[in-house]
Amino acid sequence: MSELKAILFGVGAVGSLIAKHLLDKGVRVVGAVDNDKNKVGKDLGKVLNLSEKLGLIVSEDVDSALSGEKCDVAIHATSSSFRRTYPQIASVVKHGVNVVSTCEELSFPYYSEPDLAKRLDKLSKKYETTVLGTGINPGFLMDTLVITLTAVCQRIERISVARVMDAATRRIPFQKKVGAGLKVDEFREAMETGLITGHVGLTQSIAMIADALSWNLDRIAAEQAEPVIAGNSVKSVSINLRPGYVAGMRQKAAGYRDGNPVISLDFQAYIGAKEESDQITIEGTPRVCQRITPCVHGDLGTVAIVANSVPKVINAPPGLVTMKDLPVPSAWNETFNSAS
Amino acid sequence: MSELKAILFGVGAVGSLIAKHLLDKGVRVVGAVDNDKNKVGKDLGKVLNLSEKLGLIVSEDVDSALSGEKCDVAIHATSSSFRRTYPQIASVVKHGVNVVSTCEELSFPYYSEPDLAKRLDKLSKKYETTVLGTGINPGFLMDTLVITLTAVCQRIERISVARVMDAATRRIPFQKKVGAGLKVDEFREAMETGLITGHVGLTQSIAMIADALSWNLDRIAAEQAEPVIAGNSVKSVSINLRPGYVAGMRQKAAGYRDGNPVISLDFQAYIGAKEESDQITIEGTPRVCQRITPCVHGDLGTVAIVANSVPKVINAPPGLVTMKDLPVPSAWNETFNSAS
Repeated sequence: MSELKAILFGVGAVGSLIAKHLLDKGVRVVGAVDNDKNKVGKDLGKVLNLSEKLGLIVSEDVDSALSGEKCDVAIHATSSSFRRTYPQIASVVKHGVNVVSTCEELSFPYYSEPDLAKRLDKLSKKYETTVLGTGINPGFLMDTLVITLTAVCQRIERISVARVMDAATRRIPFQKKVGAGLKVDEFREAMETGLITGHVGLTQSIAMIADALSWNLDRIAAEQAEPVIAGNSVKSVSINLRPGYVAGMRQKAAGYRDGNPVISLDFQAYIGAKEESDQITIEGTPRVCQRITPCVHGDLGTVAIVANSVPKVINAPPGLVTMKDLPVPSAWNETFNSAS
Repeated sequence: MSELKAILFGVGAVGSLIAKHLLDKGVRVVGAVDNDKNKVGKDLGKVLNLSEKLGLIVSEDVDSALSGEKCDVAIHATSSSFRRTYPQIASVVKHGVNVVSTCEELSFPYYSEPDLAKRLDKLSKKYETTVLGTGINPGFLMDTLVITLTAVCQRIERISVARVMDAATRRIPFQKKVGAGLKVDEFREAMETGLITGHVGLTQSIAMIADALSWNLDRIAAEQAEPVIAGNSVKSVSINLRPGYVAGMRQKAAGYRDGNPVISLDFQAYIGAKEESDQITIEGTPRVCQRITPCVHGDLGTVAIVANSVPKVINAPPGLVTMKDLPVPSAWNETFNSAS
């Protein structure tokens, strides 16, 4: 039984959190790639803010990072855009290495990039690797878990999913990402210029649910993120909000069938949200009303589900897969038997 | 695209409910087997209390029921005991037909009958069929769904699951099965003589969760079902309960690791239960606290999950499988493309 070997593709905020968790689990990190000039050439231990060096230098070049010993999986965490990450993921696949990626659009790539998805599927099969995009959302709370719960239903009319997060409990970059601290017109301008992109993944989650249910949707409509305005003065660790300023955002999307919204997603992330929860309601036979309180912590959950997907991906047949194609997800508490 | 063909093995209370749902879905029932002399020789439509005949006679003999056209799956619903159902299931498997069974012990047969499970696995592979035991509980609420939720955890210390049902909302046989209407000493006597068996499946659910997490348990301990005593006068459709009489039962089981109960299951089914719910609490990183309210209706949910498992089982590789080995469960809303 040999230890599992991984390379890290992207050691930014989320990639670093995953890296630390994998190291804690005893996974051997045999390579690290990043394009940040402040990280390239440095020891991974230093980049991860560990107390000691790991004897592994962060590289800018995938091929050199993968030129050493054969590894089992690449943990890819660089961008939300499948189009932008495709060349990165393809470069790993060509080394015959499996990929678990946090790329939001890759959680269900057939929605925004069907041709690119087919290309990646073909490439993965050619090199006998498995590629998965996952995360807590998209990847689990607003899609895989929803799909799982539909299994108790004989008939389904409509599905509503809501995630309500208090952004104050999250990383500062996340708080900024949802616009916290901005004036309302600054928020709208930032949305227009793309400085704030909103949450990526609602449309992918809807497409994945519809695919699992064999529902042909007329269309999937994503509303633009709307600012949530701070009422009373609330604050997070670093952002003090005066009433009238933006506390965060709310974003909705829906999948329509015969003109009716049959899958509705509602994502809310703002400082001061009182009741953090993940809610799934399935109107059907029987009706299912599920609630996780508080909502699952985004970073903790993403790190978990990425790591926990590693054994599933390694054991899966080659190809581009989504969460719903893999066996029931589960925590990974085992020393893994490496393929190499 | 041809329709899916099924045979029914067992057309008792649950088997009949599943049969009606499959007929509603357009599944073609090509055979029906039962050992009840009141059903054998009668038209299935009559046995199912349908308004019209189906032109299919309930048979006592599996081989003759399966001697006609090749079918895709057998829906098996006869007994909770794997040992008792083994010959029935084996007789279907030998015809090269997949099996979805409600047999509670078959939901995780490696716990109570590891040798028999291996034998059935071998047999299924020989005849290139897939066999699954499932249901709402065991099969989903207290095991598969729990396992699914562990996927968001980096570390898990302890898992608690509770199912609280108001037996008044269930079938009369179910109400009697949980002892409703008995005096306390009658309940205890019925438990001793085996007239009431308690809920079957808690130990299987614990074993399945432990297996998914690669937890080596020291032992799994199932407490005997305890009567829940009616406080104020409560009633169901047919059973009037005076205070002091048995309203139903509560049953607990736990899986121990290093002497500590790390997986605790608590099953409550009694007339007058105020807050029907399915609760899962995972003490870990992050802590996950999930609640389905009201609890998923047992019969509706079992019918659903058995039917919804059919396409998964047909598409799975041969062998004896459990819910956690199959892809993420989901509702089945499609006309299925039959394998035959």
